Order: sequence, then C-alpha cells, then structure tokens
Amino acid sequence: MQQGAIMKYTLALCQFFFARDKEETIRKAGTYIARAADAGARVVSLPEMWNCPYDHKYFAQNSEPEGGMTFEFLSESAKKHGIWLIGGSIPESDATKIYNTSFCFDPDGQLIGKHRKIHMFDISIKGGFSFRESDTLSPGDKLTVFDTEFGKIGVAICYDIRFPKLFSDMAERGACLIVLPASFSATTGPAHWELLIRARALDNQIYFAASAPARDPAGSYNSHAHSLVVNPWGEMIGAAALDETIVYSEIDLDYLAKVREEIPLAGQVRDYR
Amino acid sequence: MQQGAIMKYTLALCQFFFARDKEETIRKAGTYIARAADAGARVVSLPEMWNCPYDHKYFAQNSEPEGGMTFEFLSESAKKHGIWLIGGSIPESDATKIYNTSFCFDPDGQLIGKHRKIHMFDISIKGGFSFRESDTLSPGDKLTVFDTEFGKIGVAICYDIRFPKLFSDMAERGACLIVLPASFSATTGPAHWELLIRARALDNQIYFAASAPARDPAGSYNSHAHSLVVNPWGEMIGAAALDETIVYSEIDLDYLAKVREEIPLAGQVRDYR
Repeated sequence: MQQGAIMKYTLALCQFFFARDKEETIRKAGTYIARAADAGARVVSLPEMWNCPYDHKYFAQNSEPEGGMTFEFLSESAKKHGIWLIGGSIPESDATKIYNTSFCFDPDGQLIGKHRKIHMFDISIKGGFSFRESDTLSPGDKLTVFDTEFGKIGVAICYDIRFPKLFSDMAERGACLIVLPASFSATTGPAHWELLIRARALDNQIYFAASAPARDPAGSYNSHAHSLVVNPWGEMIGAAALDETIVYSEIDLDYLAKVREEIPLAGQVRDYR
Repeated sequence: MQQGAIMKYTLALCQFFFARDKEETIRKAGTYIARAADAGARVVSLPEMWNCPYDHKYFAQNSEPEGGMTFEFLSESAKKHGIWLIGGSIPESDATKIYNTSFCFDPDGQLIGKHRKIHMFDISIKGGFSFRESDTLSPGDKLTVFDTEFGKIGVAICYDIRFPKLFSDMAERGACLIVLPASFSATTGPAHWELLIRARALDNQIYFAASAPARDPAGSYNSHAHSLVVNPWGEMIGAAALDETIVYSEIDLDYLAKVREEIPLAGQVRDYR
C-alpha cells in the first residue's frame, strides 16, 4: 500500500436495467450515479453492457468509439460528483471491430483505465443456455489495474472471471479491489456466480465487487443480476437480488492487511516440479 | 483421456479419527478400507495425519520412513482388496526431517504416488486459531499426478489447497480427480473449506475430493471434518458431517467431458499484457 492511502471508503454498485433507448438509459444511469455519490460513495460502478440490450442485434447500433456520447457522460459524471467511476461496460467501436469495454474515470473526469473484455462468453449448455459473444464482439488483450488514493483497483468483465490467473496477476500488480461489471445467465448464475466471486476474493485476499444489471422482466436476456461484494476473507458484505437497487459496501484496507497477516499466503508460495 | 479408460467408478473417503495408539488406529483403518472395498469402491482415501494426533509433540514419535509399518499396511490393503488406495497422510521421517506425506498404491500394492505436503500450515488468526506446522515439519517440492485405468489422479494435502496454481498445473497434466487428505481447523473450516473445494473443482472442471478425519471429541485438535466430494460443475455430490463415516461418490468422466464441452475453458485461455 502506498503512503498516504485512504484506508476506508464506500463503494456503490448501481444495479439497473436498460431503459427504452440509449439516451433514456444514460439519463437513468445519471440518476443512479447521483444517488450513490450523494450517499457518500467514493467509488461507483455501473453494470456490464448497461447502455445496450445484451443481444447481438443491438451491439453494433449502440456502439460508439472512445470519446463518444456515453464516454463523455461518464467523464462528466465522475467530475461533477468527484468520484472514481467504473463505467460498467458498453459496446465500443474501433475501426471494423466492436469490443465489450469498461471506461474508468478519476474524480477529475480523466480516463484512468480502459478494459476490453479479454475472454469471450462462448458457452453452450445442453438443454440450457447458449451464447457466442465472439460472433459479434472482439476480445481485448490487456490487464487493467490503476492507481487511486484508495490503493490500486483492477477491472475485468464478466466471463473473464472464469480465468483465475488474470485475477492473481492483478493482485500481484497490487489490486486491493477488483470490480467486475458482469451479467451472468440465468443458467450459470445460480450455479457459479457466488462461488466464483467468493473464490477470487479469498484466493487473492482482496475485495471483489461484481456489478450486474437488474433483471429486466421484458428483456431478451435474463441477467442473473445479484450484484455482490465479497471481502478478503471470502464473506459476502453487500448483495442485491433481481431488482433495481444500489449496493453499498465499506472497503476497509486495514481489514485486508489483517487477513493477509493472519494467513500470509503471498510469502508462502513455494516452487515445485 | 487415454483409450480404454473406465469412465465411471465409485470413490470412497474414510472419515475416522485416531484411536488410542498407532497400532490400534491401523487396525481401525483396515476395517474402514475393507468396508469401502466391500461396498464396491475402486478408489479409497484415508484422512490427513490419520495415524498420528495432529499435534507437534506426536509427529516425531509416530513418524516412520518410507517402507515402514504404516506403508506396508497400506500396500497390503491395496493388494488384498484390489483397490487404488490414497493413503491419506502420515508423518514420514527421512534423515533428520519429518514430512507430511501421502503414500498412494495401485491394486497390486505398488507405490504409485508419493506426495509430501508442499505448503506448510502456518497461520495465526487474531483471537482464534494459530498453528505453525513448519516448527516441526518440512515441505515437499513435487507435484503428484499418476495414471490409473480411471484416468489420471492428482494428490495434494490440506493447506496446499490455498495455492490455486498447483491445482491448475495438476489439471493441465491431466488429473481428472484430485484427492486432498485434509484437516481444516474449526476456525478456517466453517469459513473456507467448502468454498475452496468447490472453486478448485469448478475452475479446473475436475472432480475434487477432500478426505478429512472425523472430529475427535477428546482430541487436542478440532478437525473441521466434513469430507466432501465436488463435481466439475462445482456441485457437492458427497458430504459428511463431524462423525465417523464413509462418503461414497460416483466419479463420471463422461460427465466431466460434458462440462468441458459446454464451457470449453481450456481452449479459451487468452494472452494479455
């Protein structure tokens, strides 16, 4: 931890669903961000693909390049409220490709992190849910960790969580909190959501916050919702159900240090052949 | 999976506690192994440190070299019953050192695997449980995976489970089932036991079996007990409570293949910088 870091702060996860169109959803996001900031949150996150229905046919039409309408909204919101804003994710267009991208801003409204989802959500459950994100989206190739006055924060997106090494690498680079905008399916959510989030927190002795959209009763994709915050001991300290809400959690870096002192994993790693 | 492998078999975890002395405990283990084999188990596991109280002052006096009394008992038991026997773990003496070692035998009674616990259980929970295994025991430095007609089986011991890379390395070397003789404490057990076991199974899409001693009401160490078997989807398919018992579970390698087809993680790993 760097000298002078603030050891305790409030994190807010805004759980809402897509409104009628992108403009209306941006206004909706604005009210959630304002509520969270007014309640004292210093780090605020939005869900995965919050400004676009999670459906192949909408990705292209809702996509925008870095610096577009949604990007500007996020930058202005961060500055207006003086918060660190993890901008969930949106479809980002770049040349001929579309990425699932999280733009993150500091309290001055400056872009401080940009995470393009690395691992494409391509699954096919027999008799259940199937999706091939790679049919329309392209993967990123960069791990995302940035500095804040609360220590380092890492960002990854949804299916990235299935790949544990990405998270141990982020923790090794100093991330104390990892925020994961994510929208698990109604098939894998009940089976794996809580387990994966708790495991990443415990194994890396970090805070882990999964920031999901609410279940849209009229949407084509049934998001598991259930935004969740887990502490470095693996305990759930903030949780939502299906509905629109804001999850507030206290992130306490002294507690993180205590857990690492009690079970000093980082110093106990051993070589083997 | 190798050609001609048997895809379905019964695994048994023998959950018992140390009897009055080593000889009596060996006889007790013999009755558990016989019961498990008679019930049709083809792979049988014993708990961590089953022939010795889990207490520094007993490790040296109960230790024995490879080929000692307990080793011979395990070899003979495997051969007599024609089973694969994961011999839990025992204090193994070698020159001036003592290791926490699992000896594993094939149905001919041949030593097929030998795992010395790699990661020493050195923790200190404030206001809770403390232990420094490294005060009396020495760590191993070798990953353990061996071939069987049921596919490859990996073995690790207790605190090793805190280090996820060891398990992804075993899975990469082909382990379809990992057996973990283990005895979590009454502090970390309720908090982390189930979470860690389920996470290792799900992340690696393997069967994971944690083989614990029963809680000894008169023992100096309060084992969490709760032997547990989890399938590659992260579901608990066999579980014990605190008492002496045998947990039987069906290991189904066709099911493992199905999970890996539905969520094809191995082919989806991506590089990043």
